[in-house]
Amino acid sequence: MPVESSKPFPKKRCGVLGATGSVGQRFILLLNDHPHFTLTAVGASPRSAGKKFSAAASWKQGIKLPERIGALVVKSCTPEEFKDEVDFVFSGLDSDVAGETELAFLQADIPVFSNSKNYRLDPLVPLVVPTVNLNHLDLIPHQRRYHNLKQGFQVCNSNCAVIGMVVPFRALMDKFGPLERASMITEQAVSGAGYPGVSSLDIFDNIVPYIKGEEEKLGAESRKILGSIQDENTKLSDAEGLLVDGTCTRVPVIDGHTHIVSLKFAKSAPSVEEAKEALRSYVSDAQELGCPSAPEISIEVMEEDDRPQPRLDKDKGKGYTVSVGRVRKVENGAYDLKYVAVSHNLVIGAAGGSILNAEAAVLKGYL
Amino acid sequence: MPVESSKPFPKKRCGVLGATGSVGQRFILLLNDHPHFTLTAVGASPRSAGKKFSAAASWKQGIKLPERIGALVVKSCTPEEFKDEVDFVFSGLDSDVAGETELAFLQADIPVFSNSKNYRLDPLVPLVVPTVNLNHLDLIPHQRRYHNLKQGFQVCNSNCAVIGMVVPFRALMDKFGPLERASMITEQAVSGAGYPGVSSLDIFDNIVPYIKGEEEKLGAESRKILGSIQDENTKLSDAEGLLVDGTCTRVPVIDGHTHIVSLKFAKSAPSVEEAKEALRSYVSDAQELGCPSAPEISIEVMEEDDRPQPRLDKDKGKGYTVSVGRVRKVENGAYDLKYVAVSHNLVIGAAGGSILNAEAAVLKGYL
Amino acid sequence: MPVESSKPFPKKRCGVLGATGSVGQRFILLLNDHPHFTLTAVGASPRSAGKKFSAAASWKQGIKLPERIGALVVKSCTPEEFKDEVDFVFSGLDSDVAGETELAFLQADIPVFSNSKNYRLDPLVPLVVPTVNLNHLDLIPHQRRYHNLKQGFQVCNSNCAVIGMVVPFRALMDKFGPLERASMITEQAVSGAGYPGVSSLDIFDNIVPYIKGEEEKLGAESRKILGSIQDENTKLSDAEGLLVDGTCTRVPVIDGHTHIVSLKFAKSAPSVEEAKEALRSYVSDAQELGCPSAPEISIEVMEEDDRPQPRLDKDKGKGYTVSVGRVRKVENGAYDLKYVAVSHNLVIGAAGGSILNAEAAVLKGYL
Amino acid sequence: MPVESSKPFPKKRCGVLGATGSVGQRFILLLNDHPHFTLTAVGASPRSAGKKFSAAASWKQGIKLPERIGALVVKSCTPEEFKDEVDFVFSGLDSDVAGETELAFLQADIPVFSNSKNYRLDPLVPLVVPTVNLNHLDLIPHQRRYHNLKQGFQVCNSNCAVIGMVVPFRALMDKFGPLERASMITEQAVSGAGYPGVSSLDIFDNIVPYIKGEEEKLGAESRKILGSIQDENTKLSDAEGLLVDGTCTRVPVIDGHTHIVSLKFAKSAPSVEEAKEALRSYVSDAQELGCPSAPEISIEVMEEDDRPQPRLDKDKGKGYTVSVGRVRKVENGAYDLKYVAVSHNLVIGAAGGSILNAEAAVLKGYL
Repeated sequence: MPVESSKPFPKKRCGVLGATGSVGQRFILLLNDHPHFTLTAVGASPRSAGKKFSAAASWKQGIKLPERIGALVVKSCTPEEFKDEVDFVFSGLDSDVAGETELAFLQADIPVFSNSKNYRLDPLVPLVVPTVNLNHLDLIPHQRRYHNLKQGFQVCNSNCAVIGMVVPFRALMDKFGPLERASMITEQAVSGAGYPGVSSLDIFDNIVPYIKGEEEKLGAESRKILGSIQDENTKLSDAEGLLVDGTCTRVPVIDGHTHIVSLKFAKSAPSVEEAKEALRSYVSDAQELGCPSAPEISIEVMEEDDRPQPRLDKDKGKGYTVSVGRVRKVENGAYDLKYVAVSHNLVIGAAGGSILNAEAAVLKGYL
Repeated sequence: MPVESSKPFPKKRCGVLGATGSVGQRFILLLNDHPHFTLTAVGASPRSAGKKFSAAASWKQGIKLPERIGALVVKSCTPEEFKDEVDFVFSGLDSDVAGETELAFLQADIPVFSNSKNYRLDPLVPLVVPTVNLNHLDLIPHQRRYHNLKQGFQVCNSNCAVIGMVVPFRALMDKFGPLERASMITEQAVSGAGYPGVSSLDIFDNIVPYIKGEEEKLGAESRKILGSIQDENTKLSDAEGLLVDGTCTRVPVIDGHTHIVSLKFAKSAPSVEEAKEALRSYVSDAQELGCPSAPEISIEVMEEDDRPQPRLDKDKGKGYTVSVGRVRKVENGAYDLKYVAVSHNLVIGAAGGSILNAEAAVLKGYL
Repeated sequence: MPVESSKPFPKKRCGVLGATGSVGQRFILLLNDHPHFTLTAVGASPRSAGKKFSAAASWKQGIKLPERIGALVVKSCTPEEFKDEVDFVFSGLDSDVAGETELAFLQADIPVFSNSKNYRLDPLVPLVVPTVNLNHLDLIPHQRRYHNLKQGFQVCNSNCAVIGMVVPFRALMDKFGPLERASMITEQAVSGAGYPGVSSLDIFDNIVPYIKGEEEKLGAESRKILGSIQDENTKLSDAEGLLVDGTCTRVPVIDGHTHIVSLKFAKSAPSVEEAKEALRSYVSDAQELGCPSAPEISIEVMEEDDRPQPRLDKDKGKGYTVSVGRVRKVENGAYDLKYVAVSHNLVIGAAGGSILNAEAAVLKGYL
Repeated sequence: MPVESSKPFPKKRCGVLGATGSVGQRFILLLNDHPHFTLTAVGASPRSAGKKFSAAASWKQGIKLPERIGALVVKSCTPEEFKDEVDFVFSGLDSDVAGETELAFLQADIPVFSNSKNYRLDPLVPLVVPTVNLNHLDLIPHQRRYHNLKQGFQVCNSNCAVIGMVVPFRALMDKFGPLERASMITEQAVSGAGYPGVSSLDIFDNIVPYIKGEEEKLGAESRKILGSIQDENTKLSDAEGLLVDGTCTRVPVIDGHTHIVSLKFAKSAPSVEEAKEALRSYVSDAQELGCPSAPEISIEVMEEDDRPQPRLDKDKGKGYTVSVGRVRKVENGAYDLKYVAVSHNLVIGAAGGSILNAEAAVLKGYL
């Protein structure tokens, strides 16, 4: 159970940009049951605007499209259309349109929680994985001052592939200090590519050992997420010295990324048992703050040889928990420890991450 | 094209032990078209012995069971039953019976080409990947002297998972000297687990990040295969200093293992282009000897970002070619180079490897 | 919402026989959240007896094994071991042991809800699909008299493949009278075969057009389920004249059977719209009785051309709702109407059906 | 073995329209090994025209793109670009462009073998499945007279889904007379939808019970294919009275359609054994004519309960043989007999059908 916050949690109205896409649909699923956020507006491409959401979206979820949402009329993704109806927006826009659109919302003083890659490395934009670095939200006042805004701001969440590194790394770094280098091989689910995304002819009975643009993000994003906020909350500094090598592969799995990770500490390495204990006892800021969607545990350590597995473990903590197993010594000295992690690429790795970030922003008083 | 051997290739009669299993069936497929080897006897468990092969085996291949083979009466796996009908045997036996059975054949002076793990690390038994170390077959006279045999001997082929290391490594070591360490993450096909093997409920829409007994083999087997034969062909010595770290995962792919490999040279590392050139120009002993089943090229280097892929690339060179792609620098200094390899786990990684070994044994005069 | 029963629902203690298997595990999942049934005893084969359930079972569910259940010590499946700890048992036993075991429980006066095929066609045993024929439970007093029991009885639920016929057929027969003939082609999920069940090598990228023993059950079971209870609740009579033709195929789907059904009425056929209206407005006895697990709607009629689909629709009504789509005229006169149905083979088609049956037995006062 | 034709088979040059698509790539694979047809020109959309084929096509085949083909410069699909370099063309064009383009080739006096649906029901265009109705090619002279052509003509092949009916039906009708009605449920492979075609998110772990536009074709196409050519080869007449009811579903299979077929004879029905014998002994015109690609047998009857299966049986006869199994009586009188058939949707069901048609056209002197 999340530690109960003493502050009451105010109701907020939110919108989703890119609502018809696969991240957008996941936002709708998660928001439909949300205790405090009410989805009041959905935006999509001009082709969809003006239609009822039920007609505009090809709804692909196992849970029925909620009637109230289906009846919403899709808006164009412009701040004018949204500003009177929402307190903030989530963006599941494709990166080719996210740049301009999110900037327009920001400039219109509407807070934006973004899933796109466009602004992730912007020094003024916090890149936040809610079970890792909620403290980076404290850059918001500085960002507002810079843009001369009253309530607007922009917060990004990370690429779904870095989750397997940054959540366990945070727990380990808190106990054993900085990391020197890491390796990550990913086995990524097809839902990470959106819809229609990966053709069945490409991935049935097959592995594709490459995901365009993915490997490049691993180092930069994880250094930013694992970095610190400094100078009286006016500056984000990268985790120094962490060198990441990665290979990203696509596998025939629907949801849930598998991460095969090795890492080397800058100082002396913990034993396997010490590392597992650090992972097991990790309590994230999302839990401490009492975010309503925060999982009971941020990292579940599994002892079975053959776990975690994406089909069995991705939904732990409603998709917000990262499962870690096979914690072992690296045998050849290239790294200290290795493990296998599974995370839900659409929950903690995308829409759910944004929602937790928004909950934290409310609890921290930025929203 | 294989370099044509000047020696004529004599006809040989062979048997298959464990013929009803999945490696056994692959032997039958490959031998059915073989220009010089005639399959004359099939052995299986006592439960099957005495039945026609067509009745004893649950034939699971896309190619029809050849009528002649289907009509063979299955024998018990004892040397008495085989010795008058074969010149040598291939063994696709499970490891729980392979130990005793293969030894009995050896002691009965019948040459055995084994796919089991039981004798792979025996210092008297060559562990041979035919596109890597056919010269290790030259231990056969010494093995015969030791066991006091005239024509019998035993040769093993490797675990299917080491193929992605040892074939490219041989090519690189020939040009750039010994390796210091390597890392291998595998994404292994379900056919590697035999039949019925992996339950569909375990692997549909899933990854299993563990294969029992597999990771332990990677280091020891690759050091032996990449080692040398010494002391006037009386001793096999391991490749010194090569430290291997591995993680083996099972993926929803039918045939074809994907290997994600990083490696560090003991001396100075070649550039990516130099490494690719070394891989591309590698000619294996199997090609030089003129083995009838040898592939035209042992290693195919691919330049496309998203290759090799198991479904598209496993059958290259009829399953004897290893495809290598994404040859790149390792970004964080833990290793020098990395690449992705795909190999056919049932051809070069199992039955086909044994057949090429037998062809080489004929051409070298041991059979 | 189920119509609320005015009777209070008493707490009951139950056991699961065959608890380690795949139907058994589904029972555990469903019972863990049950408001009125408490799982107090688990039974399995002698090999497992005496171990903690967490050690005996290879738990394969996406939801964690509840700790309390994991700590239960597995019993042998004998009435002595169970009788003091349960009010009744669910049986997920394999048919090779179910016959004798369930009989022993019955004779020991312990009520049994069975998933096995052994007693389904016994004239003294109600064969009940809870959203179709709960009134057949009223045979229980007669069954008890026959066996001279006080509280024991035996109730079976149907083969998972007949669900796609009997639930919609009940709704249609209620409005339009008896059926003359029906055809059913099934596309059945692998979980229907238990664990390990279907080998991945048999079903990946493949269809198997045969399921042993399945097609024979379709006619006899559906005639019994759709039949009536007569002679003052002392006799079950088959639905007369219903002739069923079936072909059962296995497909690469984890959970959820797809049924492609055609049917001909004995009298005049309704129009497509009339048929859909009858399906849509059907209220099952399970709903009317107020069974706690009864779905809000027993049959959901879908209008989209490409629905229902097993991955998207199997979980409707928590797996108790049958989804029906593509209701159309048959074009060539062989039948009147056709449709496609999807049902959850492990919920309404197996464990869930038994649980609903038990709830109804409580509400009807038999338990 | 095909009966050897006494006529020598002249060499012909051919082109492929729509060469970059999935049917187009299959044409290239099949033509690359063809003994008499040389692929000399490839056409695709304006976007690809002018590029080398290797650059224009995303080659997705397990066999390497032949170098000679890769070096061909892609042309626009206009007759001017092709007429000096080919004797005829195969069209794998999408139906939205096939109508106009194929007509232009026809009017330019270039023979066209089409895979599109556009002209299949044109009374002047033979719709030919080569193992069923090659005699319909004899309409060509009449078609030429009508269009005032010297050598041009147009021949279509059928939708891939009708193969499972028309090939076995031809064999049965030859022996037992006309059919009155038939039912076909299909389980169709994803490759039938082209590339990128079916999204992995739609079909992984799923069934889609609908294929747009498919069911409507079954009756009309099969009646035309099974019809006769009359009035001195100037008229095609439909098979009278054959009423077809169909449901087409998409399944997670790469290649190979499964057809579940029931049929009723107009006169008295054969026994199961008689029907199997008729299927087994069927010799198609393609075999009799000695078409080089004709399979040794057009229909393989399988006796195993669980066959045919697409993964194991689609490649029989290099993809030109239809496998038929589970021949049984229909139990409820709606039809006489039923069976399961598997056919390769891209070979006999598409590109291969066109190639056999072209071979027959050569042997019949039309090309």
